[in-house]
Amino acid sequence: MASQPGRLIAVAVDPGDESLYALTWCLNNVVTKPKPEEDSKDTLVLLYARPPRALYPSMDGTGYLFSSDIMASMDRYGREVADTVIERARKTCASYPYVNVESKVEVGDPRDVICEAVEKLNADLLVMGSHGYGLIKRAFLGSVSNHCAQNVKCPVLIVKRPKQ
Amino acid sequence: MASQPGRLIAVAVDPGDESLYALTWCLNNVVTKPKPEEDSKDTLVLLYARPPRALYPSMDGTGYLFSSDIMASMDRYGREVADTVIERARKTCASYPYVNVESKVEVGDPRDVICEAVEKLNADLLVMGSHGYGLIKRAFLGSVSNHCAQNVKCPVLIVKRPKQ
Repeated sequence: MASQPGRLIAVAVDPGDESLYALTWCLNNVVTKPKPEEDSKDTLVLLYARPPRALYPSMDGTGYLFSSDIMASMDRYGREVADTVIERARKTCASYPYVNVESKVEVGDPRDVICEAVEKLNADLLVMGSHGYGLIKRAFLGSVSNHCAQNVKCPVLIVKRPKQ
Repeated sequence: MASQPGRLIAVAVDPGDESLYALTWCLNNVVTKPKPEEDSKDTLVLLYARPPRALYPSMDGTGYLFSSDIMASMDRYGREVADTVIERARKTCASYPYVNVESKVEVGDPRDVICEAVEKLNADLLVMGSHGYGLIKRAFLGSVSNHCAQNVKCPVLIVKRPKQ
């Protein structure tokens, strides 16, 4: 009965170490190693929310227009960060060959991206670090994990990185 | 590597069905069935916070003193509820003989009782329903699960009962 494999587990990842810790905790404590006679594997879907461009992307605070070169390089940088985050998470999963790993990158606020993806995927569980923002930003925007815990229908596992 | 048994999992229980659903979800998805050669079992500690007496227990809102009989029967009722909650949770666990089950009842606010017990037990995981209060009380007091997710050091699994 216990820990049946074949579940779809969404894991929110970001550039912070906490989300990597949450992923590892999930791999060690939730993901099930199927028995030899079993076909089904758990599937992890790595979710990354790529920050959107600012609302008025072609103008900075002083009113100067950004050149299209700068815009293009900001976009490129955002895509590179996304690739790095997903790549690092996939490397972490590589030691657990009995889990399927997929990934999904969407542009937007992490709270919206995560909640929408979890619903669309019809995930059995959402795993995330306790925060995805720094201290200041979190105070204004509220905690991502708190928002998701309140808004997604499936169980939510919030993992805090232990203090060194 | 995955899902090593021998962990200590604290599960907050209360008279609501949601906490029972959370317990069952944990038994089916987190608790590990040890292999025959393994000695270690996961241990579940059922945590129940028995509501404290009101601050001025011997006086009701109208200024009349409660008799000691009424006080005694209120206390008895509180203990009976605690017994029923723990009993029901233990019955749920009975189908999973490969897990050790313990219980811990403390008088106090659920937020304090749960957070303190989790620290004392040095639990590996806290499992709870998404709320332990009704809608009105939660609006004033804040969500128990939200408070615990922010305050305990170990990972927290918040399980919502699916809408019928």
